[in-house]
Amino acid sequence: MSRFWSPAIQSLVPYTPGEQPKVDGLIKLNTNENPYPPAPAVEAVLRHFDSERLRLYPDPDCQALKQALADDAGLARNQVFVGNGSDEVLALTFMALLRQPKPLLLPETSYSFYNVYIDLFGIDARHIPLTEDFRIDLDDYCGENGGIIFANPNAPTSISVDLAALKTLLERNTDSVVVVDEAYVDFGAASATRLVEQYPNLLVIQTFSKSRSLAGMRVGFAFGHPDLIEALERVKNSFNSYPLDMLAQQTAIAAIEDKEYFTACINRVIETRSWTTEQLQKLGFEVLPSHTNFVFTSHPQVPAAELMQYLRDNKILVRHFTKPGIDNHLRITIGTTEEMEALISCLQAHPAL
Amino acid sequence: MSRFWSPAIQSLVPYTPGEQPKVDGLIKLNTNENPYPPAPAVEAVLRHFDSERLRLYPDPDCQALKQALADDAGLARNQVFVGNGSDEVLALTFMALLRQPKPLLLPETSYSFYNVYIDLFGIDARHIPLTEDFRIDLDDYCGENGGIIFANPNAPTSISVDLAALKTLLERNTDSVVVVDEAYVDFGAASATRLVEQYPNLLVIQTFSKSRSLAGMRVGFAFGHPDLIEALERVKNSFNSYPLDMLAQQTAIAAIEDKEYFTACINRVIETRSWTTEQLQKLGFEVLPSHTNFVFTSHPQVPAAELMQYLRDNKILVRHFTKPGIDNHLRITIGTTEEMEALISCLQAHPAL
Repeated sequence: MSRFWSPAIQSLVPYTPGEQPKVDGLIKLNTNENPYPPAPAVEAVLRHFDSERLRLYPDPDCQALKQALADDAGLARNQVFVGNGSDEVLALTFMALLRQPKPLLLPETSYSFYNVYIDLFGIDARHIPLTEDFRIDLDDYCGENGGIIFANPNAPTSISVDLAALKTLLERNTDSVVVVDEAYVDFGAASATRLVEQYPNLLVIQTFSKSRSLAGMRVGFAFGHPDLIEALERVKNSFNSYPLDMLAQQTAIAAIEDKEYFTACINRVIETRSWTTEQLQKLGFEVLPSHTNFVFTSHPQVPAAELMQYLRDNKILVRHFTKPGIDNHLRITIGTTEEMEALISCLQAHPAL
Repeated sequence: MSRFWSPAIQSLVPYTPGEQPKVDGLIKLNTNENPYPPAPAVEAVLRHFDSERLRLYPDPDCQALKQALADDAGLARNQVFVGNGSDEVLALTFMALLRQPKPLLLPETSYSFYNVYIDLFGIDARHIPLTEDFRIDLDDYCGENGGIIFANPNAPTSISVDLAALKTLLERNTDSVVVVDEAYVDFGAASATRLVEQYPNLLVIQTFSKSRSLAGMRVGFAFGHPDLIEALERVKNSFNSYPLDMLAQQTAIAAIEDKEYFTACINRVIETRSWTTEQLQKLGFEVLPSHTNFVFTSHPQVPAAELMQYLRDNKILVRHFTKPGIDNHLRITIGTTEEMEALISCLQAHPAL
C-alpha cells in the first residue's frame, strides 16, 4: 500500500487467475483451456496477415467480427458487443448496467470474479446460496433488485439451468437486467442467445477462450437488446476505444466461420467428459452432472486438498478452491484422452483409492 | 438512453477516435499513425508463431515483455506496467491513482480522453489554460491537488516541456502523483523515464502505437516506482487479468528489440516533419514547434474548418477539433515523403493560398 493510491483501491482483493506454470511437462487441467488447437483457418490468418497494416489502428467497432457473430447467432449486428475476453465484457457490464441503487442478486458460489467487480465498482450485492445439491434454483432470485447475474452452466459447479426456468425468471423480473454468463454453454447446455429477441433486459455473455480454443487471443462477446449493447459501447468507448487488436479480430472471425471443426472439438470434449466421469465414479468419486469442459468432483474418503497436492506431485495440475462449501471439491478440466487417462491412472495408484 | 443503464453512465460523453475510413485511396493524416511498417521481426513473429498455443491463456503478467521494456529503459521489471494500448494504461491510472479527494490538475487543452476518464470515474478536476503561445507552463500547476496529468509533448499542440521544468514541478509537488503521458516522446522530446528512479510519485506512460508502428496490436506501458506499478496491477487484476493476447506480447517484444530500425524510422519522420513545416510556412501557415509525429498549424487567412473540408474533398484526411481556442488549427500527421508532397501540392493548388 502507498499514500499515492486512490482510496477506493486500498482494500481491493484482485481476482487470482489459475496458475500458468512456466515449466514444461505438466498436465494442465487447472484453467479450463480447450485441449484442441483453434480452427485451421486461425493459423492461416497468422501466416498470411500483412504485418504492414499493424501500423494502423484496428477497427474500434469490430464491425466484421460483430457481423460474423450476428450471422452465426441469427441476430442483427447491433445486438452484438465484443470485448477483450469475457472478463472485460463482464467488467464493462458491471459498470454499464449493474451499478444500481438496488442490490445485485448472484449465486453465493459462482465465478469468483463477480465479487471483485462488486468491490471495484462499489455495488450492493445479495448472495444467494446454491441448493444442497449445488444447483442454482432461479426461484430463489426474487425480490427487489438492481440486476441478476449468474453463470450458466455455473462455475465451478458445472451444472446448468434449463431455459424454461430462465424464461420464468425473465417473465417475473422485468425491471432489471438479467446477465447470463455462458462461458461454458457450448459444451452441452442450452444457450439463451435467441431469447434476447423476446426479453429486452437479457444480456448473454460468451467467450472464444473455451469452446473456440482461443484463450490466447482474448475475445469475448455479448448478445442483447440494442439498448443494452449501446450502454456497453458507451462505457467501452469511455475506457479504451480499441481493446481488440487486428489479429484478435481476424482470428476470431476465422474461428467462428469453421462450424464443422467447432462441432467436432465440442463432441470430442463431451465424449472424454463422459469417459472421465465414469472412471472417477468407479474410483468412488461423486461427480456433479457437467455441461462444461470440466468436472466438479469430490471423494467421500480422501480430502480434495490432499488429492490436489498428490496430483501436483505427479505433475498434474487441477484447481482447488478454499471457499467454504466447495473446499472438498476439485475442478478438473477435460483434456485430451491421453491426459485424462494419465489422470485416472495416477488416481488409481493413490493408496487410498 | 434506457431505464436499464447504470445511473452514472447516462451522462457520459465517450471519446471519439479519429476516423478509420473503410474506403481505399485516401491519404490518412488524421490519426497520427506511423507511415512506416513495424520492425521486420514483427512479421517473423506472425509467420512462425505456433497457432496451437493460442488454446492456452497468455501470461497474465506479461513478464517477458516487461523484461524487454525494463532492459531497454535501464529499469527493473517491477518498475514496468503494460496494458492494452496507452488508453487502457491511462484508464487504469485514473482508477488506481488519480481518483482522489483533492482536484486533479491538467491542461485545458490536451488529450481529450482525460476528460472522459474524469467523467467516468467522477473525479474533481481543475483545468489550467495553456499560455498564449500554446505551451504548458508547469509553474501554473501549483496549489493543493490530488494529482497532475499532462501529455509531453502535448497533444494536439505538439510542443514539449523540458526536463528541467518537470524536475522543478516534481520537487515542489511531492504529495500527489504526477503522470506524464509520453505517447509522442520518441519523435524528439526528452523522456522522463529515468527520473522515476528519483521521484516516487512520477508515472511515465508510453505506447507502441506511434513510434513503434504497432497501433494495430494495442500495447501501451508505464514506468514508475514499484508502489505505483503495484496500484496499476491491482486495478488491472480486478478488471481484466489478461488484456494483452499472446501475439500482442510477442510482437511488442520484437519491436522493442530492433533498436536500429526504430531509430531509422524516427529519423525519417523527423526529417519529413522539418520539410513539411518549411513548406507550410512558405504557404503562410503558422506551425507550432513540434516534437511529435504531427504538426499543429493554422493559416492567418483561410479558416481551418474550410481547409479540412478542402483537403477531404481531395482525399486527404487531417484532424480538426471544434474546441474553442484551437478550432482554427489543423492537426496533420507526418506521413511518408510522398504523402506530404501530395498534401503540400494540394494546398498550393488552393485558390486562397
